[in-house]
Amino acid sequence: MARRATSAPLHVVLLAGGSGTRFWPLSRERRPKQLLALAGPEPLLTAAWKRARRLAPVSRIWVAAPRRLVSPVRRLLPALRQDRLIVEPSPRDTAPAISLACATVAGLDPEAVVGIFPTDQVVRDLDAYVAAVRVAARSAQSGRLVCLGIRPDRPATGFGYLRCARKPLRGRATAVARFVEKPDEATARRFVRSGRYLWNGGMFLWRARRFLDEAGRTAPEVLDPVLRHLAGKRGAWARARRVSVDYAVMERAKDVVVVPLDAGWDDVGSWDAAARWRGPTSPDEGPRILLDSPGAAVFGGDRLVAVVGVAGVVVVDTPDALLVVGRGGSEKVRRVVEQLKAGRLEKLL
Amino acid sequence: MARRATSAPLHVVLLAGGSGTRFWPLSRERRPKQLLALAGPEPLLTAAWKRARRLAPVSRIWVAAPRRLVSPVRRLLPALRQDRLIVEPSPRDTAPAISLACATVAGLDPEAVVGIFPTDQVVRDLDAYVAAVRVAARSAQSGRLVCLGIRPDRPATGFGYLRCARKPLRGRATAVARFVEKPDEATARRFVRSGRYLWNGGMFLWRARRFLDEAGRTAPEVLDPVLRHLAGKRGAWARARRVSVDYAVMERAKDVVVVPLDAGWDDVGSWDAAARWRGPTSPDEGPRILLDSPGAAVFGGDRLVAVVGVAGVVVVDTPDALLVVGRGGSEKVRRVVEQLKAGRLEKLL
Repeated sequence: MARRATSAPLHVVLLAGGSGTRFWPLSRERRPKQLLALAGPEPLLTAAWKRARRLAPVSRIWVAAPRRLVSPVRRLLPALRQDRLIVEPSPRDTAPAISLACATVAGLDPEAVVGIFPTDQVVRDLDAYVAAVRVAARSAQSGRLVCLGIRPDRPATGFGYLRCARKPLRGRATAVARFVEKPDEATARRFVRSGRYLWNGGMFLWRARRFLDEAGRTAPEVLDPVLRHLAGKRGAWARARRVSVDYAVMERAKDVVVVPLDAGWDDVGSWDAAARWRGPTSPDEGPRILLDSPGAAVFGGDRLVAVVGVAGVVVVDTPDALLVVGRGGSEKVRRVVEQLKAGRLEKLL
Repeated sequence: MARRATSAPLHVVLLAGGSGTRFWPLSRERRPKQLLALAGPEPLLTAAWKRARRLAPVSRIWVAAPRRLVSPVRRLLPALRQDRLIVEPSPRDTAPAISLACATVAGLDPEAVVGIFPTDQVVRDLDAYVAAVRVAARSAQSGRLVCLGIRPDRPATGFGYLRCARKPLRGRATAVARFVEKPDEATARRFVRSGRYLWNGGMFLWRARRFLDEAGRTAPEVLDPVLRHLAGKRGAWARARRVSVDYAVMERAKDVVVVPLDAGWDDVGSWDAAARWRGPTSPDEGPRILLDSPGAAVFGGDRLVAVVGVAGVVVVDTPDALLVVGRGGSEKVRRVVEQLKAGRLEKLL
């Protein structure tokens, strides 16, 4: 109890940026994945806000969003304080966004511990999540750069991995030996078998000042323009290098540890995954009739949608575009978006 | 040539009735199958009119339609003469409709030979079709009730069959031994192997008076109300028995023959069949992107429709209802319609 009393309070930063073409046609340039109710009755962003509320009071919850998403974010999160909204003038990947957030929070509270959380993910077991974040926050308090690492339940090839110095234990921080980029399937299998690898879910906790020091050392081409932007220098933001925090900072940082997360985490990376999470239909949408179509799901729209004899198909109904994608075809949705770009149908993006 | 000169002219009667729930949601109660462009760029009814024009001048082409279809029929067939439109007060199956048509034509020309043709069918080889109809018309002229019988190319279970007294030869009328209802698949296989069976396509030729005599003998419960209706008796039509001409008349008629039709005929009985006939897309409709979806097809709508990784799927896009049906699932579309009836969604029928 004594320790808790002396520790700096946790600030939560929700990253509301990111586009993602994998959820076209429901996701569009101005309505990215995190604004959609892909995995349940509420938008992913709303669910992320509720998780944040388990970690901190409203006064310590920040949302970092690119300018074009500010108004939908405020609409979805009416409890978000105006002075806790961090606006990125334009999307420039996670290193500039996180640097801006940490510098902003550090300006308010130089001792702050900050938790960085993407908002396009889902977590089934909230209690396990909160417990892991608390362990990570204590480790961050002591000066480490802490990742939350998801224990893999399959040899996923869509995530980066964290190689741990030894087998990571629940409730404990373990040193990270190496960041590994998305592997091929054979490599992923080997990783999972070894028990030494966790998925990099893009969730981090650290003292804001500690991160800024590390960023200044490893990525001045990110941090310097961000700080000049904060100081009011017009046009500085656009000169920050567009790069991920993993690549720019974490892979070269010292004292990086990981706390395992066993909380039913998913990044809902495809229509198939959304169908598994949300189920075949949503009561908020139009009438649906699904016959002889196990695993099929319908998203969006007020019209009647009938699916007959197509197992695992996902149907996405929007006013100006309709997608019908077969089981396992989710990855190919990008190709539709590419064809739209090539075929002068950009208005549908 | 002498024979042709003395033969009565052929009147063509197009049957524009029939609903068909198999093409929901493009077909609705007020827009049945024959009004749709299911098998090519034009509605089936329009194609049937063009075939009729190969057989007779406009003055001898009649269209029999239930009252609720009169206005779409006239819109699609601007060349149809007002006095060649035969209106059925309500749909009562083919025996009343054909009796009404034959009595109407016989009133104009007691010697008329009449050819009766459904309008929800397609024919690939028009020349072969015209030749077969001419053979049938000559046989009808001599007093026989003539069917056109389609030589089966597969053991279809969706059609009635005609058993011929001997193997039917192209260009010749052969006596019909028996009308056979839709068989199961093993029976259908036996039929096709034997070479003695043809599909009953619902196309007939006869002298109008000859048919009326036969109908008077076999089906007075049809003919008498129809004649009273023609004589102006209100309410008579509704008392005509609702029955098919095959069952009411043909199965019990004398001197029934069949002329084989080898003309690429199909009744386009399912979305699968429509997709085979029309192909994956139509240039008259909205933009489509089909990826890794061999045999897939999209019908209707102005929206963009993208199909990704679903072989053989048929997507039918209408303003208030969307159908996605898998290969071989066409027969189950009826079940959707049943669910709509049961679920208080009749407005979508």
